[in-house]
Amino acid sequence: MELSPEWVVGFVDGEGCFLVSIVEQPEDKVQYKVLAEFAVVQHRRDVQVLQALKRFFKGGVVRVNHDDRLCFRVRKLETLVQVCSFFQRYPLKTKKQVDFVKFRKVIAVMDSGEHLTIDGLRKVIGLAKSMIHADASRFQNVLASLGEG
Amino acid sequence: MELSPEWVVGFVDGEGCFLVSIVEQPEDKVQYKVLAEFAVVQHRRDVQVLQALKRFFKGGVVRVNHDDRLCFRVRKLETLVQVCSFFQRYPLKTKKQVDFVKFRKVIAVMDSGEHLTIDGLRKVIGLAKSMIHADASRFQNVLASLGEG
Repeated sequence: MELSPEWVVGFVDGEGCFLVSIVEQPEDKVQYKVLAEFAVVQHRRDVQVLQALKRFFKGGVVRVNHDDRLCFRVRKLETLVQVCSFFQRYPLKTKKQVDFVKFRKVIAVMDSGEHLTIDGLRKVIGLAKSMIHADASRFQNVLASLGEG
Repeated sequence: MELSPEWVVGFVDGEGCFLVSIVEQPEDKVQYKVLAEFAVVQHRRDVQVLQALKRFFKGGVVRVNHDDRLCFRVRKLETLVQVCSFFQRYPLKTKKQVDFVKFRKVIAVMDSGEHLTIDGLRKVIGLAKSMIHADASRFQNVLASLGEG
């Protein structure tokens, strides 16, 4: 299955998700780790489409999500940088674009290594907390524990 | 907002729905009416995308679906014929394509007026009952009442 860039944009406008979460990492200096993810979930009948996305983005994995749903997801920073380049060249048309712009900034912070500092982590949270599916209270709690409520 | 055909295919692969239902129409000769619908549901934040789809397909309406969701939908036969021509030229990539092929055959039956006969109605039900979101037991009941269980 061959995918065109415009088809991919349309499909991701419908089904894609840009997620940023913060997980506790007690052994780290800043005690939290940033987890960024680009994901597309589909019924398992459409596994071929997810595999085609994996080839298209030259990375990511196809995994079981829950029940009969599969997920194509990218977590590796190097591949996320490529995903961001793609969507900068071919912008999304839905309001998901607003999320993507924040996501792209988070990836830039991560790519520079700044997220490993408390200031960088605050910057990431500042961007991520207003994203559509963000758990705002969770982000607020992390900010508070970093000494900024 | 300008939509490209490939983007529309990708978006509909994600969010579109081809529906066929049978509603009771006691005053009609065959007592049932075929209702075919092409629909795309989105959060109201993306009303502009739904309006762009309406312009793209030169027909249909944008309506409240439920809560904060809006729906672009086409029910008019003339516009559905155009929608089918479009997706024949630009095929869907997901398994929704299997549904679309059945939907297109239903629209052809309706376009010929054959659905106004009992045989035509049986043909429509035969196509529609295996579509992904079909209410198979409902179709079975209608077939039974037409004298074919």
